[in-house]
Amino acid sequence: MARRALGRATLAVAQAVEAALTPQDTALLVACSGGADSLALAAGVAHVAPRSGRAYAAVVVDHGLQDGSAEVARRAARTLEGLGLDATVVAVVVAAAGGGPEAAARDARYTALRAVAEDRGATLLLGHTRDDQAESVLLGLARGSGARSLSGMAVRAEGLLRPLLGVSRATTRACCAELGLEPWDDPHNADPAYARVRVRARVLPVLEAELGPGVPEALARTADLLRADADLLDALAAEARERVEEDGALDCTGLAALPAALRTRVLLAWLRDLGAHDLIARHVAAVEALVLDWHGQGPVDLPGVRVGRTDGVLRGPT
Amino acid sequence: MARRALGRATLAVAQAVEAALTPQDTALLVACSGGADSLALAAGVAHVAPRSGRAYAAVVVDHGLQDGSAEVARRAARTLEGLGLDATVVAVVVAAAGGGPEAAARDARYTALRAVAEDRGATLLLGHTRDDQAESVLLGLARGSGARSLSGMAVRAEGLLRPLLGVSRATTRACCAELGLEPWDDPHNADPAYARVRVRARVLPVLEAELGPGVPEALARTADLLRADADLLDALAAEARERVEEDGALDCTGLAALPAALRTRVLLAWLRDLGAHDLIARHVAAVEALVLDWHGQGPVDLPGVRVGRTDGVLRGPT
Repeated sequence: MARRALGRATLAVAQAVEAALTPQDTALLVACSGGADSLALAAGVAHVAPRSGRAYAAVVVDHGLQDGSAEVARRAARTLEGLGLDATVVAVVVAAAGGGPEAAARDARYTALRAVAEDRGATLLLGHTRDDQAESVLLGLARGSGARSLSGMAVRAEGLLRPLLGVSRATTRACCAELGLEPWDDPHNADPAYARVRVRARVLPVLEAELGPGVPEALARTADLLRADADLLDALAAEARERVEEDGALDCTGLAALPAALRTRVLLAWLRDLGAHDLIARHVAAVEALVLDWHGQGPVDLPGVRVGRTDGVLRGPT
Repeated sequence: MARRALGRATLAVAQAVEAALTPQDTALLVACSGGADSLALAAGVAHVAPRSGRAYAAVVVDHGLQDGSAEVARRAARTLEGLGLDATVVAVVVAAAGGGPEAAARDARYTALRAVAEDRGATLLLGHTRDDQAESVLLGLARGSGARSLSGMAVRAEGLLRPLLGVSRATTRACCAELGLEPWDDPHNADPAYARVRVRARVLPVLEAELGPGVPEALARTADLLRADADLLDALAAEARERVEEDGALDCTGLAALPAALRTRVLLAWLRDLGAHDLIARHVAAVEALVLDWHGQGPVDLPGVRVGRTDGVLRGPT
């Protein structure tokens, strides 16, 4: 590949990889499923890394959830080696856990991938595209839980690098075609039991047909803007919380004086620290009513915790 | 109506009206098109206002855009009078203007309605529902221009009161049915030339089918949360702008030190004050690059204005 002129899609992928890297990224580890997105990412890395003196390799996870997954992983590893990347296959055991099989598989995969990357002192690269980002925004929209849930994925967060968040899935597929690669199509990606699959196959096409072909870009841009908003508001809420919290209890006068955007965030963070889970807007509104609409009402029961107001402060279980 | 027990939908509408009113709303003027939403609103007002000693009336706009619009307006006025509201018909001339006929008709309508309300010292009430709010969020999403464009309408803003933003269109229709009212169906509401109509008829049903029946509520909740965010961030950005602006120019060192969420808002507000219009994310990004990625590049041409960097400050036309 290095010796030929790059095709247009492969060039776009390589440029996206290059733009995302910093001098701290001295070693790159591509997480690859064998699908078009992560194969294209691997091809981009194989082009960019040697030219900048970076170490690079790939890791393929086999979580054994489907018949033939070991063979899929081995095939991906061979394809990666054809692109010039050393590829390690890691077998992962998925434990049943809360959040359903999708979440359990993802958690197990990320844990295994991070362990390999840490072991090698490498930055872990994931192949999420602009289309994945658009799907994330729509899934967050259906939850209705605010800026953070609409803010999708960051290019760099929690030790992960996602260089292709500005690149379309059509481009990663074209890149594979340019390079003669045959990506694996995960049957999960066509299973309408998954909300993400329904968004991809049924919701986004309708949005594009009715509102214009720029919808995935608009959604990805929304994610970027709202992520910047959420980052600042979370930081301001953390400062505000320090001012209104004493011994784990929140001062209602101080809470009432906060802008609504900070008050709901302070309450949410405090409730989560108390062990509340699966919180929805109605829960936070009930706790906020103890602050803004106080008329002596009793404590509020939330999943995982009960909170009430006494002597002008909100308290959790004592 | 006052003498009978209210039906369930009519009660829900009346409660929403009651919850939205403050002691300052001593006189209520319902803007009515003759459609289900504004007729239901009028019915709710006719129930609530006399019990709380408030003056109340209705105003119907005839903007003469369709054959028979005068008759539609007269019929709406008769229906309103049957509900116990004095109804005035106001004829409005729609001037052709930028933004298309939809925007021109809306501007003309609002100007006429505000004039009548002001004349009477009344609060102007509009019948927008939760479904209108959900549609607004989706239209904003397709623009991809951030929290403000996703924040829909506020219950109270700019002298307008929208008590039904938490009430579904199904409820306003049921209210009309309970009261034996025959709402007018605006043919514009079925014309797929309008993006809002396509969102209503084609996009929202798919979202509900694929992601669950709670989608309009989730979208309306998103609007409320993001409006609170946008209100705070706009206020903080106005403060930040005062710190970085001198004689109409912006200090790049100060801009660079701002959190991204404030920097983009400061730039946007400044560009608009300079006369820039139809700004999209790419425009703001190009100006932001003068701050964050300065390498001596030339000025940036935007619709309506050219801005450049000299001596460490951003300036508009001199």
